[in-house]
Amino acid sequence: MSTVATRLAAAVAALGRRDVDVLMVSVGSDLPYLTGYRAMPLERLTMLVVPAGGEPVLVLPELEAPRVARDPSFRLRAWGETEDPIRIVADLVGDARRIAVGDQTWSTFLLSLQERLPAARFESAVPIMSELRSRKDDEEIETLRAAGAAVDGVVARLAGTRFGGKEERHLAREITEMVLDSGHESVEFAIVASGPNGASPHHEAGARVMTPGDAVVVDFGGRRDGYCSDTTRMFVVGEPEPEFLRAYDVLRRAQEAAVRAVAPGVTAASIDRTARDLITSAGYGEWFIHRTGHGIGRDAHEDPYIVEGNDTVLESSMAFSIEPGIYLPGHWGMRIEDIVVVTEGGVERLNRSSRHLRFVD
Amino acid sequence: MSTVATRLAAAVAALGRRDVDVLMVSVGSDLPYLTGYRAMPLERLTMLVVPAGGEPVLVLPELEAPRVARDPSFRLRAWGETEDPIRIVADLVGDARRIAVGDQTWSTFLLSLQERLPAARFESAVPIMSELRSRKDDEEIETLRAAGAAVDGVVARLAGTRFGGKEERHLAREITEMVLDSGHESVEFAIVASGPNGASPHHEAGARVMTPGDAVVVDFGGRRDGYCSDTTRMFVVGEPEPEFLRAYDVLRRAQEAAVRAVAPGVTAASIDRTARDLITSAGYGEWFIHRTGHGIGRDAHEDPYIVEGNDTVLESSMAFSIEPGIYLPGHWGMRIEDIVVVTEGGVERLNRSSRHLRFVD
Repeated sequence: MSTVATRLAAAVAALGRRDVDVLMVSVGSDLPYLTGYRAMPLERLTMLVVPAGGEPVLVLPELEAPRVARDPSFRLRAWGETEDPIRIVADLVGDARRIAVGDQTWSTFLLSLQERLPAARFESAVPIMSELRSRKDDEEIETLRAAGAAVDGVVARLAGTRFGGKEERHLAREITEMVLDSGHESVEFAIVASGPNGASPHHEAGARVMTPGDAVVVDFGGRRDGYCSDTTRMFVVGEPEPEFLRAYDVLRRAQEAAVRAVAPGVTAASIDRTARDLITSAGYGEWFIHRTGHGIGRDAHEDPYIVEGNDTVLESSMAFSIEPGIYLPGHWGMRIEDIVVVTEGGVERLNRSSRHLRFVD
Repeated sequence: MSTVATRLAAAVAALGRRDVDVLMVSVGSDLPYLTGYRAMPLERLTMLVVPAGGEPVLVLPELEAPRVARDPSFRLRAWGETEDPIRIVADLVGDARRIAVGDQTWSTFLLSLQERLPAARFESAVPIMSELRSRKDDEEIETLRAAGAAVDGVVARLAGTRFGGKEERHLAREITEMVLDSGHESVEFAIVASGPNGASPHHEAGARVMTPGDAVVVDFGGRRDGYCSDTTRMFVVGEPEPEFLRAYDVLRRAQEAAVRAVAPGVTAASIDRTARDLITSAGYGEWFIHRTGHGIGRDAHEDPYIVEGNDTVLESSMAFSIEPGIYLPGHWGMRIEDIVVVTEGGVERLNRSSRHLRFVD
């Protein structure tokens, strides 16, 4: 069976177990996961309709149809510029009652479908798709491994790059080009957050010029063969302040401990707690303002989330980030991030570049 | 009044006219249009809640809060990693009955809100937001003009670039870098579709090597200061076949005629008809497989769509593309695209690079 056929069969089985009649997925990563085709997030509706019994149909704009790699396990229904795609999807649904909708499907389409199918009950497809997607197969893990190795190579190139005197956004541009050079098809983000900007975890690289004494959070990733990379390393221009160095030692120990705590059978929340307890007991707890990590795969963020309250039990072949951080408003921020995969015996790191501070000019 | 204050007031007025109680916008361009803040399309909910009477509130993840430029016309409600943002939004909505939801809001959030607010009636915010966004103000037009001039400069650079012997994706990468060099903050797409690949309007640049005799569709754009560029020009490597040249003359006349037909008071559909009638009467009608254009602004595609059946009457300060194409499957494709703005007196082109064929090595 093709990968597409295997996954569509698994989706149908999941529908059966949950008594859902139809699965509908549109933009986002569920669609390429199930069919190999990624739809552009545009106003023309693309929707894969998977009935619990019956043939999956990919409804899509006629002018996108040539971009689909055909597979015998689903049928194409291309719609012309003056057709109504909502009517086409509604006709495929027929009198089905329970419909699961992909997480990122645009609300405008869901609202139109709800109006057209007033007797149907719509619910989120997240539980179904997460069950399928959160455990990776061997090929997915190998692809994630290659994406991780590629960005590790970029980290190595960065160690020989001048930071001082450069605007954050110019370094971000260099990183973008290095990530594309490394074989990624896209760069999803390149955070360069220097000095006090580092205290904003998702800071957008701007016009600030990096100068001696700055710590710089460098967090970047993209897609390589459809799967995401994501790594964070810390750089310092010249000498950082002593308090920064003390905190960095704490952070490195916390990240290391959280990685080592990963194993089948423990909960996602327990990994968060491992990192948080160490940072808290060193007195930095109130500055660790986000969860410890997020699942990764075709989406940069997906299940399982490594966060307090998530009692998901980790299983072999789940992939996620371990990325504690400490953020001192007005002064600096720091974060260390690796992607890891749960193995039968424990954990495999997909990012292997050194987690020591990197001193740059 | 600040731009943000003006636009939020216009949104509230639109709610009043339509008897809608609350407007909710999330990822996509409605949010930056109303607040200046663009949310990352991620699993943590960001939602601007605008009540018909009362204070607008931007609900967003705590770690994104530093990225928001504050404005007195809306309040921030940052939520921590273990809070439930759906509950926060639901509490803000209270017992409001009619709720308009931004088009690109993820379905997973809409479904959760529908469950939490069973008495509310949800509808698309597209009519409200389109009314606000489709007529641009002077600053928006100036920004679109600058974005258009920037990509025109890239077209000029491309004329001196070698195509022959190069893979499509490598040229796409060069274009991406030129667009970033031109002052864009992002590149949304760079279509390089050579030879028979040109017949797929949204072809993804691939490993095909361009060779003499190829016609090459080059269609690219991105965002510059938050507003989109989008232009298509045709290149030929060596000499194209005679049939291609005949068709290109037809296409150029059709595109020109459609641009000249733009004026306040005519319908969007009539512009489509102008281009289509000329192409059809030359015998290529069945190969013009898409609409003539799309509105543009903060979104690459937005209202008004220049398509059969759209009786929207064009008004001064609307901006959209005029991009007829002819696609001969297995042989070649061609498209010419300019962004135009409706003026009091007729039309202004925002792309001014020559629409003649460009012969390249």
